[in-house]
Amino acid sequence: MATSPSVRIIRTVKFSAAHRYASAKLSEEENQRVFGACYRPHGHGHNYRLDVGVEGQVDPVTGMVMNLADLDRVLKREVVARFDHSFLNYDIEHFAETVPTCENLALYFARVLPPHIEVATQGRMASVRVWESDDLFAEVEL
Amino acid sequence: MATSPSVRIIRTVKFSAAHRYASAKLSEEENQRVFGACYRPHGHGHNYRLDVGVEGQVDPVTGMVMNLADLDRVLKREVVARFDHSFLNYDIEHFAETVPTCENLALYFARVLPPHIEVATQGRMASVRVWESDDLFAEVEL
Amino acid sequence: MATSPSVRIIRTVKFSAAHRYASAKLSEEENQRVFGACYRPHGHGHNYRLDVGVEGQVDPVTGMVMNLADLDRVLKREVVARFDHSFLNYDIEHFAETVPTCENLALYFARVLPPHIEVATQGRMASVRVWESDDLFAEVEL
Amino acid sequence: MATSPSVRIIRTVKFSAAHRYASAKLSEEENQRVFGACYRPHGHGHNYRLDVGVEGQVDPVTGMVMNLADLDRVLKREVVARFDHSFLNYDIEHFAETVPTCENLALYFARVLPPHIEVATQGRMASVRVWESDDLFAEVEL
Amino acid sequence: MATSPSVRIIRTVKFSAAHRYASAKLSEEENQRVFGACYRPHGHGHNYRLDVGVEGQVDPVTGMVMNLADLDRVLKREVVARFDHSFLNYDIEHFAETVPTCENLALYFARVLPPHIEVATQGRMASVRVWESDDLFAEVEL
Amino acid sequence: MATSPSVRIIRTVKFSAAHRYASAKLSEEENQRVFGACYRPHGHGHNYRLDVGVEGQVDPVTGMVMNLADLDRVLKREVVARFDHSFLNYDIEHFAETVPTCENLALYFARVLPPHIEVATQGRMASVRVWESDDLFAEVEL
Repeated sequence: MATSPSVRIIRTVKFSAAHRYASAKLSEEENQRVFGACYRPHGHGHNYRLDVGVEGQVDPVTGMVMNLADLDRVLKREVVARFDHSFLNYDIEHFAETVPTCENLALYFARVLPPHIEVATQGRMASVRVWESDDLFAEVEL
Repeated sequence: MATSPSVRIIRTVKFSAAHRYASAKLSEEENQRVFGACYRPHGHGHNYRLDVGVEGQVDPVTGMVMNLADLDRVLKREVVARFDHSFLNYDIEHFAETVPTCENLALYFARVLPPHIEVATQGRMASVRVWESDDLFAEVEL
Repeated sequence: MATSPSVRIIRTVKFSAAHRYASAKLSEEENQRVFGACYRPHGHGHNYRLDVGVEGQVDPVTGMVMNLADLDRVLKREVVARFDHSFLNYDIEHFAETVPTCENLALYFARVLPPHIEVATQGRMASVRVWESDDLFAEVEL
Repeated sequence: MATSPSVRIIRTVKFSAAHRYASAKLSEEENQRVFGACYRPHGHGHNYRLDVGVEGQVDPVTGMVMNLADLDRVLKREVVARFDHSFLNYDIEHFAETVPTCENLALYFARVLPPHIEVATQGRMASVRVWESDDLFAEVEL
Repeated sequence: MATSPSVRIIRTVKFSAAHRYASAKLSEEENQRVFGACYRPHGHGHNYRLDVGVEGQVDPVTGMVMNLADLDRVLKREVVARFDHSFLNYDIEHFAETVPTCENLALYFARVLPPHIEVATQGRMASVRVWESDDLFAEVEL
Repeated sequence: MATSPSVRIIRTVKFSAAHRYASAKLSEEENQRVFGACYRPHGHGHNYRLDVGVEGQVDPVTGMVMNLADLDRVLKREVVARFDHSFLNYDIEHFAETVPTCENLALYFARVLPPHIEVATQGRMASVRVWESDDLFAEVEL
């Protein structure tokens, strides 16, 4: 019997956070030139949206690639609880050194989330999208 | 002359339906554990959104991969007329036995729509996305 | 000193539910004629959105009309816990007899929510909007 | 001849900003209890949306209540240039003392914008809505 | 027994149209100055959205202010069939002379739609909103 | 050391334009049959949305695939300044001969934008999406 195509489910969570763009490797003039308004000393903020894709065969009994309740538990614990109402540069250790751009947030979630998701599913984490606003997002295919 | 890249058009239709998650292969306790609130006896509902992708070369005279009026006719007949205002488990035969998750809806449309679309176009149906809500969708690449 | 204008805050919650339109006071033919596809025997469903407005003076210390954590607690308990994943006609006693239209949902929330909200605030509940889909909502000004 | 009804136009601008909720009039325990996660020391952020309503008779020659180019100039200068990429508590003097809730932002714009708008129009500024996220906004009718 | 509050339902339809802003009562320089890019000779276009509000008592048997099927029939015939895929200045007689701004569209619908709606309902048409884009709309309360 | 996965950023711009569908290679009857309402003589319009994807390695100092200020400058000059408030068939030379469908707009941007973007970045332009409305878009992967 032919196998079914694999299916990807994409789940969205939201968090509100502040960030500031500045690099210790750049002079003040370079920081100003590269980051513009994002270099303002006190930071500014966004309502972020994270889309996590999990891909695999659909279980013939449950009709699911991964139980949503399990996925939601991971995303609540690893994303919302840590990132919502945070200042990325100060509250998330990784972003003390790494500029918290949309791209770096996507790379970060693409690296730290798969182990949490893959113990709970026969599928695999396949994609990350981080939306900073309605007109900008970064995506990584794993 | 170099050929043009192929183009994919994505068309969206919406339908409102109810569903209930329960599997005859699971005990009542297992159904409760796996499906949680989705196992409630009377079912609940969603405003679904279906995105169908059709891919091919653009016709140099019409500027189209597929005539939208033809695509809309197929989607109206095969999706909206059958699924809108339905209770998936009772009104759509396939979902009498198959749990009507987002994933299974995507697999179903990925199997039943291509013959209807491909007789009407030189392109091919290339993707399905089924949105259950703003924060969950399932996708299949064909 | 002139008083500040009063401010209305509007908070949104979502729930997914099924419903069926049928009136015991109408014959089968009348039900069919009045309710059309909404009279299908098994019901269908929606992702509903409820906007609750609370109006009052802004507290000069907290900057709030009403503490959002209190409002969220009421809406979670009285709306989401009861209505999400429900079949309105069967799971919510009021809609056993009353047709669960958008209008009747708005009237229901306009009647049952104010006492819960007003004990927790110096403001008053001022408006209800119930969205059944992106292109239909009902509103009541209290 | 009967006069035309007056018309209200509503124009939207967006800005990204960080804020922190804390009141010098409250103890640390009270701040924690009243503001919860919003009291975190480094602040967090939002993509804000501001809807400004201007109401009046439609000019029979131009078809406008107020020239949009004039309105956009005011909103760009008084809102976007000052608030986008800011940390409200530190960069906007008014919010050094006043908690930058949605309600207080709405009151602020309702007080400071009308003189800028009314010199440029025969209409009057009639309403303010400040959206902090998709599920919360504050509104003031002037 | 106390009467119920009245309820307003708001129904949305969409249409795509082109328009050009120019007034025969203005010189070319004045047209250029007042209308800017909207004065370009060939016109430009929008996806418009029209929200029509109908207000009244909810019928105790049907749970409706106005039968949606009736309202949809009026909006399809008087709005979509006439305005969708049109060039407002050339295809809609009223806008041959009147500048087709958002404001004038709202006034037009506020004048021409009520007779069609009020013969079909015990309610009354109460409001019009015309959205030209996500960041601009005009509203009239009747 | 293992390299990082590449990241794609997607940036959105909007423009309002009119268009008309008609082909000089088709008879009037054929034009009518193929294009339907889109063949109306005066044209109609849309609020378009263009999503441009740029893909590459993230710069370890700036945290960026491409400086957004550079990308925004290109999109403002090559897209918004030329296309906003335009009538595609008359104001954009390419569409004098080519039917301005969603598909042809996507192919056009996929051909003309990469040289402007690639001089300003170590990344490459990787994708184009052109949205004509909420329920239709065309996409090209480069």
